[in-house]
Amino acid sequence: MGDGLSKTKNRILKMLVDHQNEYLSGQKICDCLGCSRTAVWKHIKDLQKEGFKIDSVQKKGYRMTAPSHHLSEANILSSLKTKKLGHNLKFHETLPSTQKEAHHLAEDGAADGTLVVADEQSTGRGRLGREWHSPMGTGIWMSLIIRPDIALHQTPQLTLLTSVAVVKAIHDITGVECGIKWPNDILYNGKKIVGILTELQAEASHVKAIIIGIGMNVNADAADFPDELKKRAASIKSLTGREHDRPAIIQAILKHFELLYNTYLEEGFEIIKLLWESYALSLGKEIYARTVKGDTIKGLAKGIDDEGVLLLETRDGTVHHIYSADIEII
Amino acid sequence: MGDGLSKTKNRILKMLVDHQNEYLSGQKICDCLGCSRTAVWKHIKDLQKEGFKIDSVQKKGYRMTAPSHHLSEANILSSLKTKKLGHNLKFHETLPSTQKEAHHLAEDGAADGTLVVADEQSTGRGRLGREWHSPMGTGIWMSLIIRPDIALHQTPQLTLLTSVAVVKAIHDITGVECGIKWPNDILYNGKKIVGILTELQAEASHVKAIIIGIGMNVNADAADFPDELKKRAASIKSLTGREHDRPAIIQAILKHFELLYNTYLEEGFEIIKLLWESYALSLGKEIYARTVKGDTIKGLAKGIDDEGVLLLETRDGTVHHIYSADIEII
Repeated sequence: MGDGLSKTKNRILKMLVDHQNEYLSGQKICDCLGCSRTAVWKHIKDLQKEGFKIDSVQKKGYRMTAPSHHLSEANILSSLKTKKLGHNLKFHETLPSTQKEAHHLAEDGAADGTLVVADEQSTGRGRLGREWHSPMGTGIWMSLIIRPDIALHQTPQLTLLTSVAVVKAIHDITGVECGIKWPNDILYNGKKIVGILTELQAEASHVKAIIIGIGMNVNADAADFPDELKKRAASIKSLTGREHDRPAIIQAILKHFELLYNTYLEEGFEIIKLLWESYALSLGKEIYARTVKGDTIKGLAKGIDDEGVLLLETRDGTVHHIYSADIEII
Repeated sequence: MGDGLSKTKNRILKMLVDHQNEYLSGQKICDCLGCSRTAVWKHIKDLQKEGFKIDSVQKKGYRMTAPSHHLSEANILSSLKTKKLGHNLKFHETLPSTQKEAHHLAEDGAADGTLVVADEQSTGRGRLGREWHSPMGTGIWMSLIIRPDIALHQTPQLTLLTSVAVVKAIHDITGVECGIKWPNDILYNGKKIVGILTELQAEASHVKAIIIGIGMNVNADAADFPDELKKRAASIKSLTGREHDRPAIIQAILKHFELLYNTYLEEGFEIIKLLWESYALSLGKEIYARTVKGDTIKGLAKGIDDEGVLLLETRDGTVHHIYSADIEII
């Protein structure tokens, strides 16, 4: 986005998407957008090059024949249903890490709601600095910058909020019903479909920016996962047997996130907590929690508290507050 | 630092500083450091160019005549008395902001104890994004990266710890006794000498890096302050009437910080809190606290709690917990 030209291109794309499978005359597009027919024709050519399937028939006009699963700036922006989130979009074919790029942008003052998306990450990363496999063209690798006025200790609540938005978005677009494993994974049948990495930049007692990274395995073939991931991870395609529309999933995540986030800012965490609990896989189950310091605690996952901290009851009745851990459901 | 050559230069400088006002023969330096006399001669020339006052007398050798107040990498490293802090030094003649540079370095994995120092900042900044005046050659503009294993809400404790280290360092090197105004200013006679900006990078519940920025007005002339700062800020030179040794102050800050920080990591915040209270200007006084949200509360500053939060008692006996505010002593 940014310059006038690409704005027009995005508006043309939006018109075509909104009238999918109908013909729109070049003249009608010109009249709506106030540009020349030559300009329309040039933008359509560009969109075709970007991978959009657009028919052009004389005297009828232009028609989008199939939704494109290709990821591009125009594609993500064309049907965005949010008021704010994602409109300042930084799309890259490839990046070392969307999270790192978002940190640098946030440090340089990027606006609330800025979204970084890449079609490939060369050094994607997950929680605790772990590597995140993010090959070209198969997933959603994105980082959202938000600037809420909350206290530092509330940050983990946003990981939970994001989990809910992502589970709902996957269900909307693909029909798959995933569950959430505290603190930051979205699973199907025990295999990881999505990882969420919530990071923050803050002054001593004042959040400056929260950067929420989302990595989702969408259209990778099961056979293409590295051996060490095959047992632990899966793509949505490997569950449904078909490819899914990544721009539509991104749009759905942003839509759900914005609704939940506005509710959170106005009403607090309570309703988010209820929603989160309805998708949580571990609650009420025996689990192992391995903390960052290397201790392993076995107990019953009782729930989360109002700050998103996991409550784990050991056999002697003690309730442990777990701020950060890897958990395994027994 | 970094390459062998500049390491030798730093060791020559350290020998000269350790034997200040004595002559050291070129041969003796060669013998100690295992390099040629020509190499020694070249390094001495370099040091003279960097502003060190080094006499060279035939048959006697080299002598450092006066401590240099000039800021350089060699100068800061030559008498560093810490085990860890500051040894990974990134010195720049000029930077937009040491804090911003440190954030980028931390994001890219810079080691615990990395120090960024600049002789000038073009866009230095203070708390809440406020501008910080940092002209060439007159102050200490530095940012320290540390990676403690603490919870997010403990971060403000490190602002207080830093304040104590800085007050002690100023006293050691210049004789001036400053006081601390919660949360992050060091004052003399009501005028700001030092500002501290503590920021963090974190995963949702796990500190990755704390970046402590210190801006100190050392050798600026009172007349050189911009008009809007003249009433609120002062330099140490404006108090003592003489110039002070900036590298020595940096070394003293790091030495005190390291001692306090190790105590903090081993024993917790309690002893740091006692030290802080002994320098605090506002405790027991009537103050106005203006919060980030724009509210102003008037009350008695009772103290700080174990997490560094200011306790303010209003006339009706309510004790308010103030996490972040500008305070004014009435």
